[in-house]
Amino acid sequence: MAIPPEIFLLPPGGEGTLQQKIQQVVSESIVSGRCVVGERMPSTRRLAEHLNVARITVTLAYNELVANEYLTSRGRSGYYVADTAPKRPTFDPLATEAQEKVQWGKKFNQKFSAHFEISRPPNWRDYRYPFIYGQSDADLFDHRNWRACALRAVGRRDFDTLATDHYQRDDPMLVEFILRQILPRRGIAAQPQEILITMGSQNALWLVVELLLNRRRKAVIENPGYPGLRQILAPKRCAVEAIDVDHDGLPPDLIPQDADLVFTTPSHHCPTNVTMSLARRQALLDRAARDDFVIVEDDYEFELSFLKSPSPALKSLDQAGAVIYVGSFSKSVFPGLRLGYMVAPEEVIDEARALRSAVLRHPPSHVQRTAAYFLSLGHFDAQLARQSRSFSRRRTVMEACLRKHGLLNSQRGDFGGSSFWLRAPDGVDTSQLAYDLRKDSVLIEPGAAFFAPEKPDRRHYRLAYSSIPSGRIEAGIDLMAERMAATL
Amino acid sequence: MAIPPEIFLLPPGGEGTLQQKIQQVVSESIVSGRCVVGERMPSTRRLAEHLNVARITVTLAYNELVANEYLTSRGRSGYYVADTAPKRPTFDPLATEAQEKVQWGKKFNQKFSAHFEISRPPNWRDYRYPFIYGQSDADLFDHRNWRACALRAVGRRDFDTLATDHYQRDDPMLVEFILRQILPRRGIAAQPQEILITMGSQNALWLVVELLLNRRRKAVIENPGYPGLRQILAPKRCAVEAIDVDHDGLPPDLIPQDADLVFTTPSHHCPTNVTMSLARRQALLDRAARDDFVIVEDDYEFELSFLKSPSPALKSLDQAGAVIYVGSFSKSVFPGLRLGYMVAPEEVIDEARALRSAVLRHPPSHVQRTAAYFLSLGHFDAQLARQSRSFSRRRTVMEACLRKHGLLNSQRGDFGGSSFWLRAPDGVDTSQLAYDLRKDSVLIEPGAAFFAPEKPDRRHYRLAYSSIPSGRIEAGIDLMAERMAATL
Repeated sequence: MAIPPEIFLLPPGGEGTLQQKIQQVVSESIVSGRCVVGERMPSTRRLAEHLNVARITVTLAYNELVANEYLTSRGRSGYYVADTAPKRPTFDPLATEAQEKVQWGKKFNQKFSAHFEISRPPNWRDYRYPFIYGQSDADLFDHRNWRACALRAVGRRDFDTLATDHYQRDDPMLVEFILRQILPRRGIAAQPQEILITMGSQNALWLVVELLLNRRRKAVIENPGYPGLRQILAPKRCAVEAIDVDHDGLPPDLIPQDADLVFTTPSHHCPTNVTMSLARRQALLDRAARDDFVIVEDDYEFELSFLKSPSPALKSLDQAGAVIYVGSFSKSVFPGLRLGYMVAPEEVIDEARALRSAVLRHPPSHVQRTAAYFLSLGHFDAQLARQSRSFSRRRTVMEACLRKHGLLNSQRGDFGGSSFWLRAPDGVDTSQLAYDLRKDSVLIEPGAAFFAPEKPDRRHYRLAYSSIPSGRIEAGIDLMAERMAATL
Repeated sequence: MAIPPEIFLLPPGGEGTLQQKIQQVVSESIVSGRCVVGERMPSTRRLAEHLNVARITVTLAYNELVANEYLTSRGRSGYYVADTAPKRPTFDPLATEAQEKVQWGKKFNQKFSAHFEISRPPNWRDYRYPFIYGQSDADLFDHRNWRACALRAVGRRDFDTLATDHYQRDDPMLVEFILRQILPRRGIAAQPQEILITMGSQNALWLVVELLLNRRRKAVIENPGYPGLRQILAPKRCAVEAIDVDHDGLPPDLIPQDADLVFTTPSHHCPTNVTMSLARRQALLDRAARDDFVIVEDDYEFELSFLKSPSPALKSLDQAGAVIYVGSFSKSVFPGLRLGYMVAPEEVIDEARALRSAVLRHPPSHVQRTAAYFLSLGHFDAQLARQSRSFSRRRTVMEACLRKHGLLNSQRGDFGGSSFWLRAPDGVDTSQLAYDLRKDSVLIEPGAAFFAPEKPDRRHYRLAYSSIPSGRIEAGIDLMAERMAATL
């Protein structure tokens, strides 16, 4: 019996070529049991007519399905569902009483979702003026070379590396290039056993917290500061003290004596963009030695320091081994890459590696190797240079627009980065403003999420220029200024 | 001043072409500060002579370095270090007193490394007879199509997907194919919001434990069982009860009434390979409903069931929503991929997603998309078919060799999989045997790691055939039998 062509419907829109879609609907109909072993497929001519596609497209799809053992070809008599095709299991449903549903509420240790907020709408690309942070700009990305590196990384030569579990060590090629090319720019000298590759900097911060904090210990964080860190700290139920940052970064004098772990972004504070002075860095290290606390340095956006050379990392001054350094490629390559690293004394790395192994084993080998090629062939630096030039132009445009509207304030523009941190005029609630602006297709980031809950602030906001082309900046800022004026 | 060619030395061996190595040593010398802005590079002719390579190779490397902004070309006068090249930071080292080193021992919450043991030597590929489990065989992998999918996944069309953080949802294409193609084979019907993509099944198990277990709760595990699960449970300090598995899998009658979470591998028990009977599955679900515990089904190796059709998943019989299902592509695609998934009621997935976000955000987008293409184009099934045929052949060879030496016992060969689980003759300590066999270039897996510490066993061992070609099986088994005989 021949299968009627009518049972095959191509999904509208979606991913893939026509040929792929045909392969997909045929294979799905086999797996789902609608087509069974031995049945004859519609002829290529009939299916092509039914789907309104070229006959060669159907023929190519069938040939691929033969290669993948869903179909067999019996010469002139046509194509049949192969007995090697995957089957749906057949079994009799058991007669069971309808069971009571599990009550999950009382089973969870805690609600992690309570600390999980994303202010960015998932469809942010549909907005015309996305002043949002941390998403990449397809126009600035080196697609060609990334593709070349990804392709090289899946070559047969590299298969052993890709297919091997990296429990005990990460991709040696990636580790070596971080050691030889990235860390020297931060003044850091390290050994391979002092580096762990992580799933972005978020994962590095999480590992450190899990290793070193508990309910009897105290974390010190910057206020305002990175919201993702609070998402990590809240479920640990450790003491958390948020210290206000000034024009010079985190003031070491304000760190309490019972601090166990101090989180800081000295090169480029998140979100205010200020850089910690060298004197303060030294004072911070001295305090750490005196009061025996550990410092976690999130070397946030150092690679986007296009206005002046980045200052050396705090870690480069650390003689006691009290600094755990965290770096990331997510901002400068692309966010979905999820690749970062941690630099710390070997005994810390050993524990972090064992913990990482229990949680997820290791970052995928293919991603590690692709990044290693991208770095080692210089494409990463070229991309940074291109990104910096573009961000610099956008920053200049944005600065002029903000000044035009009298909105530029307290911004120390001596680093670069990818955003402005601003205080709105008196009477403006930036959370409300951000909400209202969505109607104008403008996305801004209200500052509230950066502040400790006990020190709420709805005056500040962040405007990023990493995902918006310069040509749209002025119109977007104009719309924002209009809404602000209407509020007052 | 021209830079002398002598400062450039190509690393011996290693990765990459000559041209890439030249790019790497030049860029490294710039980043490290050995070559500074404005200096003239050696001419292509002189460097080519010094390195003993073709001049065109040096020219191509220089051109790539120009494209990447390390060098500039000034026509006939040659190549110079560009002022756009990345710089090493310059700063005066601070005069600091030598500080006391941090004492890390008292800072760790606990030693995760205590639960982290890998019995496999990292250089296992150097062994001639690797009867080890879970590593892939390059000869069985579909390199061509995986490359094609990886390449497609980094195409410009897919960039938005790759470069977007998947906080709130995973790659819809991958989720859809798991729903439509993979789960139907296990008899499971699910909705997109009931699936979470994880970093392999290890990560899924970890997330479940973190959500549902604490010091006041009890986990039930199979004995023997998967060592990676004990690595997760030990740091949680929950109660753990290990129940002996018999020829029919985990006996539901032996589960204590105060169990909170029961871990099982019903389709194919790890490591004994037995399949739980349908009657027991139903009894297990009934017990879960009566005593209100949650079941975690690790659907281990179901896709390698080449001797008979896989039995439907426990999850497919679950009407109360008490089963959390865990699947993985690590065994069937390749281990370094680190891609798995969890199927559970929506409220569990919501919490797991929030927790995953704090820990690592999400599995890399590129890996999700590549796997989505590989699955949806049917290459995954083709690879499984090829793998199954090859494993079936190897299993037959191994079975004959084991029988020849009288070593085949208690093996129920009705599923397939990728290994034999065996009991050694009286008097053989398999840990010692595995150690001794390394001298013969034979790697076997002693069983001790699979047993609960309170029920030690050094009689059993696992022999896998997933990484050894059939032609080497007999000689390897002969060597093992010889060592065993010598022990007795």
